[in-house]
Amino acid sequence: MNAPQQPRAVPRVSRYPVPELKDLPADIRERILAVQEKSGFVPNVFLAFAHRPEEFRAFFAYHDALMEKEGGLSKAEREMIVVATSGANQCQYCVVAHGAILRVRARNPLIADQVAVNYRKADLTPRERAMLDFAMKVALESHAIGDDDFAALRPHGFSDEDVWDIGAIAAFFALSNRMANLTSMRPNDEFYLLGRLPKEKK
Amino acid sequence: MNAPQQPRAVPRVSRYPVPELKDLPADIRERILAVQEKSGFVPNVFLAFAHRPEEFRAFFAYHDALMEKEGGLSKAEREMIVVATSGANQCQYCVVAHGAILRVRARNPLIADQVAVNYRKADLTPRERAMLDFAMKVALESHAIGDDDFAALRPHGFSDEDVWDIGAIAAFFALSNRMANLTSMRPNDEFYLLGRLPKEKK
Amino acid sequence: MNAPQQPRAVPRVSRYPVPELKDLPADIRERILAVQEKSGFVPNVFLAFAHRPEEFRAFFAYHDALMEKEGGLSKAEREMIVVATSGANQCQYCVVAHGAILRVRARNPLIADQVAVNYRKADLTPRERAMLDFAMKVALESHAIGDDDFAALRPHGFSDEDVWDIGAIAAFFALSNRMANLTSMRPNDEFYLLGRLPKEKK
Amino acid sequence: MNAPQQPRAVPRVSRYPVPELKDLPADIRERILAVQEKSGFVPNVFLAFAHRPEEFRAFFAYHDALMEKEGGLSKAEREMIVVATSGANQCQYCVVAHGAILRVRARNPLIADQVAVNYRKADLTPRERAMLDFAMKVALESHAIGDDDFAALRPHGFSDEDVWDIGAIAAFFALSNRMANLTSMRPNDEFYLLGRLPKEKK
Amino acid sequence: MNAPQQPRAVPRVSRYPVPELKDLPADIRERILAVQEKSGFVPNVFLAFAHRPEEFRAFFAYHDALMEKEGGLSKAEREMIVVATSGANQCQYCVVAHGAILRVRARNPLIADQVAVNYRKADLTPRERAMLDFAMKVALESHAIGDDDFAALRPHGFSDEDVWDIGAIAAFFALSNRMANLTSMRPNDEFYLLGRLPKEKK
Amino acid sequence: MNAPQQPRAVPRVSRYPVPELKDLPADIRERILAVQEKSGFVPNVFLAFAHRPEEFRAFFAYHDALMEKEGGLSKAEREMIVVATSGANQCQYCVVAHGAILRVRARNPLIADQVAVNYRKADLTPRERAMLDFAMKVALESHAIGDDDFAALRPHGFSDEDVWDIGAIAAFFALSNRMANLTSMRPNDEFYLLGRLPKEKK
Repeated sequence: MNAPQQPRAVPRVSRYPVPELKDLPADIRERILAVQEKSGFVPNVFLAFAHRPEEFRAFFAYHDALMEKEGGLSKAEREMIVVATSGANQCQYCVVAHGAILRVRARNPLIADQVAVNYRKADLTPRERAMLDFAMKVALESHAIGDDDFAALRPHGFSDEDVWDIGAIAAFFALSNRMANLTSMRPNDEFYLLGRLPKEKK
Repeated sequence: MNAPQQPRAVPRVSRYPVPELKDLPADIRERILAVQEKSGFVPNVFLAFAHRPEEFRAFFAYHDALMEKEGGLSKAEREMIVVATSGANQCQYCVVAHGAILRVRARNPLIADQVAVNYRKADLTPRERAMLDFAMKVALESHAIGDDDFAALRPHGFSDEDVWDIGAIAAFFALSNRMANLTSMRPNDEFYLLGRLPKEKK
Repeated sequence: MNAPQQPRAVPRVSRYPVPELKDLPADIRERILAVQEKSGFVPNVFLAFAHRPEEFRAFFAYHDALMEKEGGLSKAEREMIVVATSGANQCQYCVVAHGAILRVRARNPLIADQVAVNYRKADLTPRERAMLDFAMKVALESHAIGDDDFAALRPHGFSDEDVWDIGAIAAFFALSNRMANLTSMRPNDEFYLLGRLPKEKK
Repeated sequence: MNAPQQPRAVPRVSRYPVPELKDLPADIRERILAVQEKSGFVPNVFLAFAHRPEEFRAFFAYHDALMEKEGGLSKAEREMIVVATSGANQCQYCVVAHGAILRVRARNPLIADQVAVNYRKADLTPRERAMLDFAMKVALESHAIGDDDFAALRPHGFSDEDVWDIGAIAAFFALSNRMANLTSMRPNDEFYLLGRLPKEKK
Repeated sequence: MNAPQQPRAVPRVSRYPVPELKDLPADIRERILAVQEKSGFVPNVFLAFAHRPEEFRAFFAYHDALMEKEGGLSKAEREMIVVATSGANQCQYCVVAHGAILRVRARNPLIADQVAVNYRKADLTPRERAMLDFAMKVALESHAIGDDDFAALRPHGFSDEDVWDIGAIAAFFALSNRMANLTSMRPNDEFYLLGRLPKEKK
Repeated sequence: MNAPQQPRAVPRVSRYPVPELKDLPADIRERILAVQEKSGFVPNVFLAFAHRPEEFRAFFAYHDALMEKEGGLSKAEREMIVVATSGANQCQYCVVAHGAILRVRARNPLIADQVAVNYRKADLTPRERAMLDFAMKVALESHAIGDDDFAALRPHGFSDEDVWDIGAIAAFFALSNRMANLTSMRPNDEFYLLGRLPKEKK
């Protein structure tokens, strides 16, 4: 128990400068304020990307196009894809932040930690398992995706448009994970406990 | 949102039969009752290994020899090694269960999730970072461990005996992770929230 | 020489349906017509993404934010990053299409094939070599990016903003490569010869 | 033939101190003397682990629980698992020492070298081949072990308890291999020739 | 656009000395002159290997035995194997030089770039695809080649002798790729454009 | 001990037909008889390659050019390269056959098994260790060989010509290992014991 005392690195939002809200373009400031209003805090990904307004706009437009739209995948299924592939890419921000969202969306306090560590051992339906097998292949060896991989999804009720969604979410977070690792983006403390307590409601 | 309804697999402690407490040898039953007394529940690893009493005794004797003894590593440091290497081995039981213990031992509700996903991005001291670099090399490519790896630990105050401890913990959980994956050992629901709430005390 | 005759798969733009220009939203149609005007043909990436207008807009907004802006990286340097990382990800569309753009931008008919196969053996300056070492680490093991990697770029005249650009381009094409592999996006025949003949001008 | 003369490193049992027999606890000394009596020499693994008596006791208790008990696997089959997985983990001590034991147990002077290098090309029965396929998966990617892997063993006469044995031996030597690599444990010279000569008897 | 000016490394044929034609043994000089006569230039592989006349003779004898003989594989098929496996080995010389030969032999200006980046997405017949699956396994994990791999080729009309050819070409270029990477062998500028223009004839 | 009785596969020299000596071209028959005269048996590699006389001639001409010539590497050093890289490639024939030759050449009954499993733990001089580090990089990731790798060898007395030899031996056995795995070439029983007994003389 005699570990020498050393200072821990002071946590910061990102390796890059984080602008003040007042200095941001109006559309970005409004988006951030809306998130803060809804969530009670500003997730650090918004502050980290605000360093580059053009990239901020494209990043969140892409995110919303995949994660907020209607379609064949439930919102919980989409978050499962994020958590599983971000675990494989060792992206701390995405596992912690989207793990929280997954707990809330699935109303399940256990599922995110299970999927992040090893989705093959998680409490999944066969449909969810097949979906994550495909998503992980897109994340880790997309060059080998072929007809057999598409065929394996159809018996689980996934249309070709659903498969695009699965693959596109895995592809988008391939980008997101790399940006978070590049900038050492730090998950907000608030995410860790979110969705873990029985009384919480979405 | 039209994901078809499918039954989730019914969670179970282990792929192998789990004996009843009353059918166990006295020493094993007593150990399990003592853990239950202290923790408030029986961690599934005790039930899963109870299927094989000889292996149970050896496993926990080894565990205690490394994790409970006095020595140069703090108990929180030892749990960090478990969580980081178990994450690399995709062992759900060990990440969830020892993540809980790490939160309690380090009195830090964030550290376990950080270390499990990517210890390089966690809030660590330089000593902890060097310790985990070594532990991960033992876990993942022990054949390449050499003099340089020992030398890198000395400036951080680790003696050669401490280095044995670091390596032996990584080696022991190489065994433990494989047994958990072999038996599909399931972490108890209680672990997920342990050490996350401010009022908890060890 | 007696290989049996078998039909080759009929090449197509994408595994997914490709809309007709007349059926597209006006902004997307105009963007495509502008590219056709400038290049003499419509690169298939525009047609493949047009299947999903929201994603089309976000994808090209992101692309332009990184590839068309002013900044510390020359346009040829940016294309080198695309070609090297797309080669590592085995993305046929991006290597062929951006290989053509790299030849044109660098006014060098040899560089793209060299960088695609093995950038370490390409005719590069030390600055370009360091830039590609960093970009490949973001593409292939972004979890391990740390201070040392940033430090290695500074002696070559890269500012922290330039490093963001290098990493963000590698990250964006991590997305792009996966979408191209998911959709089996096919490079247009026109790309293969572009920039290889001495008389060509940009 | 003009390689400069350089001193070879003086071989030693372990990177860590090796206690004298007289200084050891009685139970450990007796175990070592019994092995010496039976084998004619003291295998270095006993001396290397004697540096840590508690770990010595747990290690050999675990070893005996798996390797000395009755059960569905023959003793030669168990040693095959050790040799194959230790080869994959590049553990010199375990390949050389257990290679000797395998030759003796299988009364086959060729099998150990074959299995250590590439078990797929060894003179095996289909049952042995299936057993080693499973053991190698536990050794190298236990996170992916699933129902299909268990099912593949049943046609070869392996019960679920036998599969535990196969997996547990691979898991135990995952620990053992890492300890041997950590301590640079050196195989005794006696092992190399053991079981290779026709007149030898067990 | 402000990339600092740095000198590019002066390209050279090989990291090792390249002899003058007049200093070479007669048989080697004659072979080189014959190639020059036929191709219009001397491919650098001849000059690089001429540094070691004995190895030159053995290398090209082996090459000719596999690539120039009659047999069940067409010459274009053989070059496909070279290009695909050399891409996987990141051998710039072999991809560029044999890519040119493949374009000429297949009378197809697109096929070489497709196969070099990702043969799974190339315009191939099922027979060619099966052939390259096998060749890549020999190149990258020959230890795992087994009966199933041979069986997968037979429905495509490959005899066992054809399979030897496929495997032997992949094996020979495993050598060739390593020699080119060792010596930093540089592809001649002439190769890059060869076979890309419609009027070219073999 | 109740493993069901199953037939072991009948060992054979090669998966491909092995010609009778009398049916071979004279030069090949003479070479084989000379080897038999010297060694007391015909190593199976000669019989397996005799199936293809042209490839036989090229293969052994290349082998002799590297392994039999004078030069800066001792014959034992060359065999070490073969054994280490063949172990990494999981080539049973080459590890067993060249392991025997290494024992004889180095007059050391232990060195071959050590180098085959993990050369980093073998009883090597610093020069031998540096040589094998380079050879393994050529065998496993030749695309990354660069100036630093050459520079690391010079302090150990290796000239650039010696480095060619090291790399070329690793490259030649990249071919040889793949051919042995392709043909399931089986090491002769005689190799296993060769060089292990003290009275043996070269």
